[in-house]
Amino acid sequence: MKAAFYQGNHRFNIGEGTALAPGEGEVRLEVGFCGVCGTDIHIYHGVMDQRVKPPQIVGHEASAVVAELGMGVSNVKVGDRVAVRPLKFGAEHPIDKGYHHVSKNVKIIGVDAPGAFQNSWTVPAYTLHKLPDHLSLQHGAFIEPLAVACHDVKIGRVQAGENCLVIGGGPIGTLIAFVLKEKGARVIVSEINPTRHHMLSSLGFEVIDPVNQDLVSAVSDLTDQAMADCVFEVSGAKAAVDVMTEVVNVRGRIVMVAIHGGPKKPVDLFKFFWSEIELLGARLYQEDDYDEAISIAASGSIPFDKLITKISALDQIQGVFELIDENPAGMKYLIDCQT
Amino acid sequence: MKAAFYQGNHRFNIGEGTALAPGEGEVRLEVGFCGVCGTDIHIYHGVMDQRVKPPQIVGHEASAVVAELGMGVSNVKVGDRVAVRPLKFGAEHPIDKGYHHVSKNVKIIGVDAPGAFQNSWTVPAYTLHKLPDHLSLQHGAFIEPLAVACHDVKIGRVQAGENCLVIGGGPIGTLIAFVLKEKGARVIVSEINPTRHHMLSSLGFEVIDPVNQDLVSAVSDLTDQAMADCVFEVSGAKAAVDVMTEVVNVRGRIVMVAIHGGPKKPVDLFKFFWSEIELLGARLYQEDDYDEAISIAASGSIPFDKLITKISALDQIQGVFELIDENPAGMKYLIDCQT
Repeated sequence: MKAAFYQGNHRFNIGEGTALAPGEGEVRLEVGFCGVCGTDIHIYHGVMDQRVKPPQIVGHEASAVVAELGMGVSNVKVGDRVAVRPLKFGAEHPIDKGYHHVSKNVKIIGVDAPGAFQNSWTVPAYTLHKLPDHLSLQHGAFIEPLAVACHDVKIGRVQAGENCLVIGGGPIGTLIAFVLKEKGARVIVSEINPTRHHMLSSLGFEVIDPVNQDLVSAVSDLTDQAMADCVFEVSGAKAAVDVMTEVVNVRGRIVMVAIHGGPKKPVDLFKFFWSEIELLGARLYQEDDYDEAISIAASGSIPFDKLITKISALDQIQGVFELIDENPAGMKYLIDCQT
Repeated sequence: MKAAFYQGNHRFNIGEGTALAPGEGEVRLEVGFCGVCGTDIHIYHGVMDQRVKPPQIVGHEASAVVAELGMGVSNVKVGDRVAVRPLKFGAEHPIDKGYHHVSKNVKIIGVDAPGAFQNSWTVPAYTLHKLPDHLSLQHGAFIEPLAVACHDVKIGRVQAGENCLVIGGGPIGTLIAFVLKEKGARVIVSEINPTRHHMLSSLGFEVIDPVNQDLVSAVSDLTDQAMADCVFEVSGAKAAVDVMTEVVNVRGRIVMVAIHGGPKKPVDLFKFFWSEIELLGARLYQEDDYDEAISIAASGSIPFDKLITKISALDQIQGVFELIDENPAGMKYLIDCQT
């Protein structure tokens, strides 16, 4: 069977993988589609080689069909169509407080262990969430990033009627915008890339270009001076950190979705005190976020087809990663893992 | 009647004030005791002259006796002993979301309007909270800062049994420690000043000296690696901002009590994302915080007398402010406003 091995230094090789017979509590899947995540791009750039340990099969935004059950598996049956919640929980640590998804020893399958960019993938049965019959495997590949968005909105405690600002309209920002819309919130997206800006507008969102517009004034105008009840920082940019404390209102929440690696960034702590602002970190997802993501996807309210930039065969994976690097305006690239 | 006028440039003058007859909804008080707040020290240093507009009577941590009622006042009667919640609420603004205490147009009586460092003080009746009979006027002067501490702990959502770290054991930090103890939390205080360190130890708290001890290791040791569920940053120091994200556990809360003015400070935003940490701004108090502060003070659980560094007559106020500047180890200085 075919698998894509990340080799380090911007390089994937297609090679012969091994279909692993499922052990106790495991399931062997035939992978359907797997989306390319920002994390996969980081891996491709070589910045996570120490963690990923090439050669490694990556990919974690997968839909699949159950092919073979290990001993003791009863939550799925052969032929079931599923989305995978790719987390492996290690030994508990006192610092975790029971939050397994962000625990000290949590591992991401597809980063810390072999992932979905292969024909056949063997994973623990508890990672599987059944897809509704009418949801295609292409759309099923959106469940993982959509669960991220559901988790972020849950952390932000967003209520119907609230003004929300999403800073950064890439794949996760766009899915957050859709989940917010689903909650009955008023959604504004800040996005610098003209192509993405245009796409978000065509999807029905109010979009601000923070390069050519003053974001604070624009949010003030759009909200009749009430400003944002909840801001989602998804961009990772220093400019977003500078402005995030200026666009929220009293007791406003800022959900930190972006991965701000590198040097620490200056934050207006005075403003946190002054207006009793909250900064809320959000990472990955919990089981109920998958349930909610599947429910939203099943409702048909998100036009996934419009978010798919390209679907490519597994053996074209090298070209897909090169294309993403050249085209920052793209939205979601899917790999068809059976072709 | 006597009043202390802040004149600008480290200077108070004692002069003849005016006992104002209370207008409708107002009450004239005979001030009992008024504590010196960090804000008063800032004012004395001249950094708030634009806001305070000298010559100005300042002071806002007051106990008092009701001397005269204006029209329509029914919540207190002459002779009642009270604590004052010194907030004046202006026109509502859409950004406020109904949070009056941190609203755009809130004013602090004693900063933006004449304060308590005088014999006689006329304030709105709604600012008054009755003191229990057995609580002295000296101890009643602690209600305002204790309400700050109650508010901070409320914002931190602290539960019994949680590990809490207070960074900065000055008057507010110490009162936060007492409120935390009242909640059944396990309290650790980080304090650099040896005199305050000693006092906090003698008050029964576990105290860490973050200059000569590694704060992260010390918190880890004291909590069996569980780290702090809630951290109160009360110091205003850059070192505290550097360490605050290292001492909390997964989903830990950091309550931002300190006023971090000046240039923005670098914050580890990655850690917020990674461990789903929360940063929660907290400022002033709401009505229920006063109720709680009075209830805790009435219970006798806080040894206020040990927290009083010195009680001085109103006409000694200049010397008190000079003393505070020379003695950063002091705790609470009270002004007896009837002498």
